[in-house]
Amino acid sequence: MKECVFSGMRPTGKLHLGHLAGALSNWLKLQDEFECYYCIVDWHALMSEYMNSSKIKDYCREILLDWLAVGLDPEKAVIFQQSHVSGHAELHLALSMIAPLGRLERNPIYKEQLENIADKDLQTYGFLGYPVLMAADILLYKATKVPVGEDQSIHLEIAKELARKFNSTFEEVFPEPEILLTPTPRVPGIDGRKMSKSYNNALFISEDLNEMWDKIRTMMTDPARMRRSDPGEPEKCPVWHLHKIFTQDEEKKRELAHGCRSAGIGCIDCKKVLMEWIRFKLEPIQKRRKYYEEHGLEMMDILREGAERASNVADKTIEEVKSAVGFIL
Amino acid sequence: MKECVFSGMRPTGKLHLGHLAGALSNWLKLQDEFECYYCIVDWHALMSEYMNSSKIKDYCREILLDWLAVGLDPEKAVIFQQSHVSGHAELHLALSMIAPLGRLERNPIYKEQLENIADKDLQTYGFLGYPVLMAADILLYKATKVPVGEDQSIHLEIAKELARKFNSTFEEVFPEPEILLTPTPRVPGIDGRKMSKSYNNALFISEDLNEMWDKIRTMMTDPARMRRSDPGEPEKCPVWHLHKIFTQDEEKKRELAHGCRSAGIGCIDCKKVLMEWIRFKLEPIQKRRKYYEEHGLEMMDILREGAERASNVADKTIEEVKSAVGFIL
Repeated sequence: MKECVFSGMRPTGKLHLGHLAGALSNWLKLQDEFECYYCIVDWHALMSEYMNSSKIKDYCREILLDWLAVGLDPEKAVIFQQSHVSGHAELHLALSMIAPLGRLERNPIYKEQLENIADKDLQTYGFLGYPVLMAADILLYKATKVPVGEDQSIHLEIAKELARKFNSTFEEVFPEPEILLTPTPRVPGIDGRKMSKSYNNALFISEDLNEMWDKIRTMMTDPARMRRSDPGEPEKCPVWHLHKIFTQDEEKKRELAHGCRSAGIGCIDCKKVLMEWIRFKLEPIQKRRKYYEEHGLEMMDILREGAERASNVADKTIEEVKSAVGFIL
Repeated sequence: MKECVFSGMRPTGKLHLGHLAGALSNWLKLQDEFECYYCIVDWHALMSEYMNSSKIKDYCREILLDWLAVGLDPEKAVIFQQSHVSGHAELHLALSMIAPLGRLERNPIYKEQLENIADKDLQTYGFLGYPVLMAADILLYKATKVPVGEDQSIHLEIAKELARKFNSTFEEVFPEPEILLTPTPRVPGIDGRKMSKSYNNALFISEDLNEMWDKIRTMMTDPARMRRSDPGEPEKCPVWHLHKIFTQDEEKKRELAHGCRSAGIGCIDCKKVLMEWIRFKLEPIQKRRKYYEEHGLEMMDILREGAERASNVADKTIEEVKSAVGFIL
């Protein structure tokens, strides 16, 4: 039997090239190797966004469009929405009963977010329980591999602890999930910082390519290369870091790096090459996205079938959980 | 349409005459007047009992036997088990997102229990969320009347606040539940303190009546009446308080009170009368209980049908909730 992978994304808006080069390209490989559950974690979105929840519905659609567009394949992976499978809530409740309160209160990610995010009400019971819900998401499918960023490793550690505590307190039900760390490239945004919607520096997967060219044309380069005649250093240039990800022609890249260092080519010419390769990558993706935009019912079918497949597994786990904790079935 | 009543009991063992004279006799009246949901709240039991959860299954059976025995009627009320209806967990999760953490941390019932209950691990995330789950139980059926003791009025206040916050943050989905305070008699145990399983002073609904007589025969009376020839004061005698509840013959009660005050009768004779009236009350109850003990499948059917009826209502509420918070359905 194939090992099971679970991963989720919060529906908080359109995905960008950082997602494409990071998590999504990783998920694309995983769906060929493992039994993958890719989940739009809408309950998690509600946690931080309950004051602005009216957008969650649109964001769920956008994220599903992006997923299907980049090639996540409902024939291979189980693609579904968290709230469509009641087991997430049920296992969350079961794990709540054994989740040590102090562990959650002292969770450094939690403390950091409480300190740094000022524009949202995070002083809720649910937000404190974020790692409990994440543990439930993973354990519900007995996933053993969880491809998340290193920033989530504490949450995965809590999921492991809850699995262990459940098994030792009641019955052996859950395997311990392991983090699946994969090298993710640094993807700079147009201002040189890490690409992120909240920095307003992102290039979106679904963005009109002419508008994207306007952004790239004016995006930051090596700050030391003030004039066309100044030599530049590619490693200090965010455009170069995007080349590394998207430009598939090694000889061309060597030529660009040399041209930069020798002031042999200008930044605009270099950016034109990048834009062509991004176009090459995104055109088929945007074509598929358009197809699904025009076939909304097909998307709904995908979500419905995904929820059914996920529920088949989830329901069995929940039966095991209820039997283990000693409820009459 | 009839107003809706929700009430639950944690499955923590056999019920006693305190339950019979208090909550249960109240529930019996309510089931004729209202649309009643009587719920064995097994998730709540797991909250405090997770270290000893192996008994929950037996306790669920016992409590159902007691309920049916005293006359709770599945033709009138919806009798079911909390974990059989996934909506409790789902609404619990939804309300978690808006439940103010400080309100739960400052909840005086919570603080009191953390201080006074030493033999259980209450330092869990779930136990902090007790009032959130209780709110979900009530609101899931849009119950407007909640017959609970005064000790639960803070929890009901929290349920009201969560209903209000949900309605104002998202959409108007929930009516505000009201506490249904009903006078409950003081029911002393055999040592004169309030009857309670944890005081080990209880007379159980299902107890063998000969064993019960042994307990009553030796139970405490007015401490001032040391000898048969000493006059007694009924108001100071726990036996008398049981007479007030169970002895249906007013003239006989006047005679007993007079006999006590004048030392005209002995305590044993007085207790014999009480035992006869308790027997009169319990014999038909124990007969029904025996019937269900021998018809386990019928009990399972009652729980299954109860869960179905409850789910029909709960599922609708959950759809409304998901739509209100902005999930794709």
